[in-house]
Amino acid sequence: MVGLPARGKTYVARKIARYLSWSGRRTRLFNAGDYRRVMLGAQHTHEFFSPENAEGKASRLAVAKAALDEMFKWLRLDGDVSIYDATNTTRARRDLIREQCESEGVRPLFVEIICTNEAEIEATIRETKVASPDYAFLSADEAVQDFRNRIAHYASAYEPVGEDEGDFIKYIDKGAKLILKNVHDDLGQQLVRFLLNLRGTRKSIWLTRHGESMWNRSNLIGGDPDLSPSGRIFADRLAEFVNEHEAMRDVVVWTSMLKRTIQTASKIARPQQVFHQLDEINAGICEGMSYADIRQKLPEEAVARARDKFRYRYPRGESYQDLIERVVPVVLAYEREPRPLLVVGHQAVLRVFYTYLMGASPEGCPHVSIPLHTLIELSPRIYDCSEERIALLQ
Amino acid sequence: MVGLPARGKTYVARKIARYLSWSGRRTRLFNAGDYRRVMLGAQHTHEFFSPENAEGKASRLAVAKAALDEMFKWLRLDGDVSIYDATNTTRARRDLIREQCESEGVRPLFVEIICTNEAEIEATIRETKVASPDYAFLSADEAVQDFRNRIAHYASAYEPVGEDEGDFIKYIDKGAKLILKNVHDDLGQQLVRFLLNLRGTRKSIWLTRHGESMWNRSNLIGGDPDLSPSGRIFADRLAEFVNEHEAMRDVVVWTSMLKRTIQTASKIARPQQVFHQLDEINAGICEGMSYADIRQKLPEEAVARARDKFRYRYPRGESYQDLIERVVPVVLAYEREPRPLLVVGHQAVLRVFYTYLMGASPEGCPHVSIPLHTLIELSPRIYDCSEERIALLQ
Repeated sequence: MVGLPARGKTYVARKIARYLSWSGRRTRLFNAGDYRRVMLGAQHTHEFFSPENAEGKASRLAVAKAALDEMFKWLRLDGDVSIYDATNTTRARRDLIREQCESEGVRPLFVEIICTNEAEIEATIRETKVASPDYAFLSADEAVQDFRNRIAHYASAYEPVGEDEGDFIKYIDKGAKLILKNVHDDLGQQLVRFLLNLRGTRKSIWLTRHGESMWNRSNLIGGDPDLSPSGRIFADRLAEFVNEHEAMRDVVVWTSMLKRTIQTASKIARPQQVFHQLDEINAGICEGMSYADIRQKLPEEAVARARDKFRYRYPRGESYQDLIERVVPVVLAYEREPRPLLVVGHQAVLRVFYTYLMGASPEGCPHVSIPLHTLIELSPRIYDCSEERIALLQ
Repeated sequence: MVGLPARGKTYVARKIARYLSWSGRRTRLFNAGDYRRVMLGAQHTHEFFSPENAEGKASRLAVAKAALDEMFKWLRLDGDVSIYDATNTTRARRDLIREQCESEGVRPLFVEIICTNEAEIEATIRETKVASPDYAFLSADEAVQDFRNRIAHYASAYEPVGEDEGDFIKYIDKGAKLILKNVHDDLGQQLVRFLLNLRGTRKSIWLTRHGESMWNRSNLIGGDPDLSPSGRIFADRLAEFVNEHEAMRDVVVWTSMLKRTIQTASKIARPQQVFHQLDEINAGICEGMSYADIRQKLPEEAVARARDKFRYRYPRGESYQDLIERVVPVVLAYEREPRPLLVVGHQAVLRVFYTYLMGASPEGCPHVSIPLHTLIELSPRIYDCSEERIALLQ
């Protein structure tokens, strides 16, 4: 990452890290500020960050090198992608990073975050910096003033990424403008696609499975059945809940193309949108069978599935890993959507989407609990979500 | 489009038009040069294009307005996207276009093509301009010289698209650099994704279905069967053909994940790559049935399919229209790949890919003939492909 303080680097870096991890790349974030606080203690006022302060400068370089060492150690052992979240606002610092990358055989890509909107910067300072351990001993206004001084130190030495500095993405004003240099490989394209959709608006999201279907009653997998009588009661309760819930006034409802989600959402008086990418996992030749049928008729499939439920692909159907790829457009639409959302989906597809929203490990997604007739409410915090579960039908 | 002559505007415009049409947007290209030649006759030397030539300037404006009129007429009646392929190198011209767009309720997006590589420009002039009807009366060298003079006239008045000119994409040096301004909607994102993959390298591509499978013999749909004895003979012939064919020396082989394509390619001594997006159309609940079975057991499905084979989706399976969406990553990988390709696929999925390669109408794709045991060779020309079909097994 490259950019002055309070431009949203950490916000974008965490979003990217979560998205890449979810999509199957082993990704880790290394935040230089965290290393500084661990190595040197918190509570440095702006003087520490002045380019004139030789001692501060040496300490900050030592911190940067320590964080980079940890980062390369991790890349050597376990990692696909690491994100070095620091200001990196001087060419000298970026040259240091590039040289180390070259000697490690790692491809560097600079992601520079630029914000020209002063009100946006002020909001970021008040929201993410005032509560920082760096300012435990200052009032909010003192903290803001000190942080402005810290920014001024960085601004005095700031050199934006130059045309001759290799591959880069410049992300300007929340993506209103992007400049891409040599961003052609899979990872680069994945980043661009994500950044084009990242609008940075915060909203709540509610997830629920469809009401009980006729096939749920007889334990059959897949298909396109209607709701059962009990599923229809859930649909009524859900509509009542949404209508009575002030926070859900501007909600948009997303369903799959299958009858059981459309029927579940049908009584909700809110705009509705259908995504075929929200259809339930395709069980291929096992559609219409029960798990008992599979164990009996296709025992080798039952064994393979039990061995690795994440990677197991139903013959002519899908795996959870395949689902992640299929759900990408839903995740991007979520990042782009400014309004709160209610998603009426299916067990496997919601496990995959929930795993993204909560930043959980993708390999764990087959084991996420998404019970029938329960509404899961996720409320955004600065960098993550809080969760509440509401049983609408006992 | 925006850009000086011989920057590759028409090449990019045609590629975009083909891709958007294939993906389901009704798209048409309006080339100002074609309108000029029709309205004013061909064979204008460079003096006609000088900004000093008042008469030429008035004629060129009249041509531009006529082309724009046609374009808006088409957008009003039938179109989703039109591409206005002209230099549009002055702000005044772009203002005219933007005003007309506004009064028509059409969203303008400027795609500016910039090339800083002189050798590339020279090659474009020699390849696409010397043979133009404009130069029927000149030698090649005279044509090149005149065209250079024409470029100089445009260059003298060139104003690159400015920050205040609304939404734009700047495509620089074949995509080595891209600048995106407010490109967030679906169409814009689709364009960016395509342009990030468009490398502009020309190569031949060979398409073939897998050899006959055991299920082909009994007329069953889908599944993951092995090759039949006759299919295995085809696999041998195909490997011999590739090995003996000098033009296929550097070929890369793409297969689906299904056994019948992997077995068909298995004896070819060339690098191989598996794409699950090349798997055959998913026939959902009809997998493992014959068409006669479907007519008998699911007559309403047989009727719906006969009525609209392009949009018909097998229950829990896919339609041809769905296949287009699924095949997008293959098309992008094709545009990105510098080496010649041999694709070993399946009937429906090859119909969809072939339709892209030939720039044919997507709705016609269910009716493209892709016989078993036949190699289809597509050789690139400047703006399209020529085709040859070779029966390897009678």
